[in-house]
Amino acid sequence: MKINRYVDISTIDREAKKDYIDRHSPFIHCDKTAKKGERFAVTVKLGDEYPHPDDFDHYIEYVQLWNREAMLATAHFTPGTLGNMPGHVEVVFNIVPTKDLKLTAMAYCTKHGLWQSDEVEVEVTE
Amino acid sequence: MKINRYVDISTIDREAKKDYIDRHSPFIHCDKTAKKGERFAVTVKLGDEYPHPDDFDHYIEYVQLWNREAMLATAHFTPGTLGNMPGHVEVVFNIVPTKDLKLTAMAYCTKHGLWQSDEVEVEVTE
Amino acid sequence: MKINRYVDISTIDREAKKDYIDRHSPFIHCDKTAKKGERFAVTVKLGDEYPHPDDFDHYIEYVQLWNREAMLATAHFTPGTLGNMPGHVEVVFNIVPTKDLKLTAMAYCTKHGLWQSDEVEVEVTE
Amino acid sequence: MKINRYVDISTIDREAKKDYIDRHSPFIHCDKTAKKGERFAVTVKLGDEYPHPDDFDHYIEYVQLWNREAMLATAHFTPGTLGNMPGHVEVVFNIVPTKDLKLTAMAYCTKHGLWQSDEVEVEVTE
Repeated sequence: MKINRYVDISTIDREAKKDYIDRHSPFIHCDKTAKKGERFAVTVKLGDEYPHPDDFDHYIEYVQLWNREAMLATAHFTPGTLGNMPGHVEVVFNIVPTKDLKLTAMAYCTKHGLWQSDEVEVEVTE
Repeated sequence: MKINRYVDISTIDREAKKDYIDRHSPFIHCDKTAKKGERFAVTVKLGDEYPHPDDFDHYIEYVQLWNREAMLATAHFTPGTLGNMPGHVEVVFNIVPTKDLKLTAMAYCTKHGLWQSDEVEVEVTE
Repeated sequence: MKINRYVDISTIDREAKKDYIDRHSPFIHCDKTAKKGERFAVTVKLGDEYPHPDDFDHYIEYVQLWNREAMLATAHFTPGTLGNMPGHVEVVFNIVPTKDLKLTAMAYCTKHGLWQSDEVEVEVTE
Repeated sequence: MKINRYVDISTIDREAKKDYIDRHSPFIHCDKTAKKGERFAVTVKLGDEYPHPDDFDHYIEYVQLWNREAMLATAHFTPGTLGNMPGHVEVVFNIVPTKDLKLTAMAYCTKHGLWQSDEVEVEVTE
């Protein structure tokens, strides 16, 4: 078992491989700065350009949000939550930071394993 | 083990009991209608008026979104995600409905057990 | 969304209903007494007489072990863990009790919802 | 966020480091061969020689069993399941293999992150 890491798909030629990498990769969408002790929304979305199937035998079962070595939140899904249609799993977690964040997301596809996002740094100010 | 059900706190006199019920109850926030096959955002938020602790020995460990008898999504948390300060766990799940929804949410507090929301009906149109 | 409760199937006439209830019900198997502060094995097994499918669109997604209002452990599964054949989900959790236990188990079937076992009392001695 | 991998602690001099690595590492205990289509018990146990705390701010929150890139089962815990005493998280998953297995286990400590076991191969015969 190994972790798949995101690769910038603009560096990849083959269309099928771009699709494969993009649709499995979790992306973190959030502001670059946060206020200490205040609610901060972090969206984890699968795929930037390409949708992923939501089939019974092939779906995204979980996504996780991590800060450095700490798991902040995990969302589990069952097949059908996206209507059994190709789409983008997307979940918004709200966290309350107390110091600078180094966020990464993980996503698990029941056919193609575990995928890790690039790290996103968030500056937390008083 | 029993499920705690939401009770309208305006019917309750004692302040401590209002607080206890409200801060443990998951509330569903979403539109009343959705388009079939399109993304539909559903927010599950703990507490309407009163915040819940995020202490190591007392925190909200999971919230779930159900449609009738089907679990659509579960979000797990570890203590500290809300900065170890009283607050409102809040997560936005995106689902893709194919027919009318009857949504309920569940929330689990590590000290005070499992809580079920009122049911929310969503009409799904073509 | 409602919780299905176990009913003694010897009181039920119709074979299909016996099967339906039994195969969805979690059963707790453990000793009646435990030593305080020592490891204590608790098995949660689905179905006593009838197996449950492990199909992609119909499987047991989680089982939980509770002590009174506290969730001790949850096991999540993906379809195929039982080889896509009818069988009995079975997991052994090891806990360390410090006082008398009132255990219940929950199980979630992706087609037929959430099921709660009868309560099992365990006396914990020094 | 990075995955910590098991290192044979007999190759390590410092006692504190042996303890740190061992108590966080999940170990897979199972037979070396299995029968196709029959139940096969796999134990995931944290630590071989050194126990891990079960404190509110420092505990093992989940263990997972993987076969190659497929997650077979995840067990989640809340602090206190091991009586708030140092010990070994231990869970027995029952799976039904249909072909040779390459098992790995993962464990997540709320203070020290995610740990991956060595791979264990199981021959599956008719």
